[in-house]
Amino acid sequence: MLSWEGSPIQGNAAISEKLTTLPFSKVEHKVTTLDAQPSSQTVASLLVSVTGLLVVDDSPNPLQFSQVFQLIPDGGSYYVFNDIFRLNYA
Amino acid sequence: MLSWEGSPIQGNAAISEKLTTLPFSKVEHKVTTLDAQPSSQTVASLLVSVTGLLVVDDSPNPLQFSQVFQLIPDGGSYYVFNDIFRLNYA
Repeated sequence: MLSWEGSPIQGNAAISEKLTTLPFSKVEHKVTTLDAQPSSQTVASLLVSVTGLLVVDDSPNPLQFSQVFQLIPDGGSYYVFNDIFRLNYA
Repeated sequence: MLSWEGSPIQGNAAISEKLTTLPFSKVEHKVTTLDAQPSSQTVASLLVSVTGLLVVDDSPNPLQFSQVFQLIPDGGSYYVFNDIFRLNYA
């Protein structure tokens, strides 16, 4: 599930559609902080929290963002079970 | 587990010790955004992401923060399994 600026979007197809139709052509992520913790006592899943700056379409004014993922192990790889994205306005 | 500004702190006793010995006497949380998602397909656990402002000791300059929790159900209540706290500097 993806929470995008407060909007819930569920399932692979809907999330792909959302992420490929965002209204900008270029975005650069500058990661400032990254934290990870085990998110389960039974499987090797991970909770990851990232904060940083987004530079959108070469704008001189980067935007602060926070994003949280939960990664679930799946046959030697991981899939994204949770994804919460927010811009942080001052 | 608590990640406090990048420092890992594990277990009830250590986390209580950390949170009760922070170097300020008064803090006010002004929550700007709050998102929650189910964090498991098998139990009714919740992933909660909060961003907002901290006003520390009545300072006129609030600090932006991001905090993530995972809440695990436990006999009609929840306990905090994950807690990641970060200040977001511009």
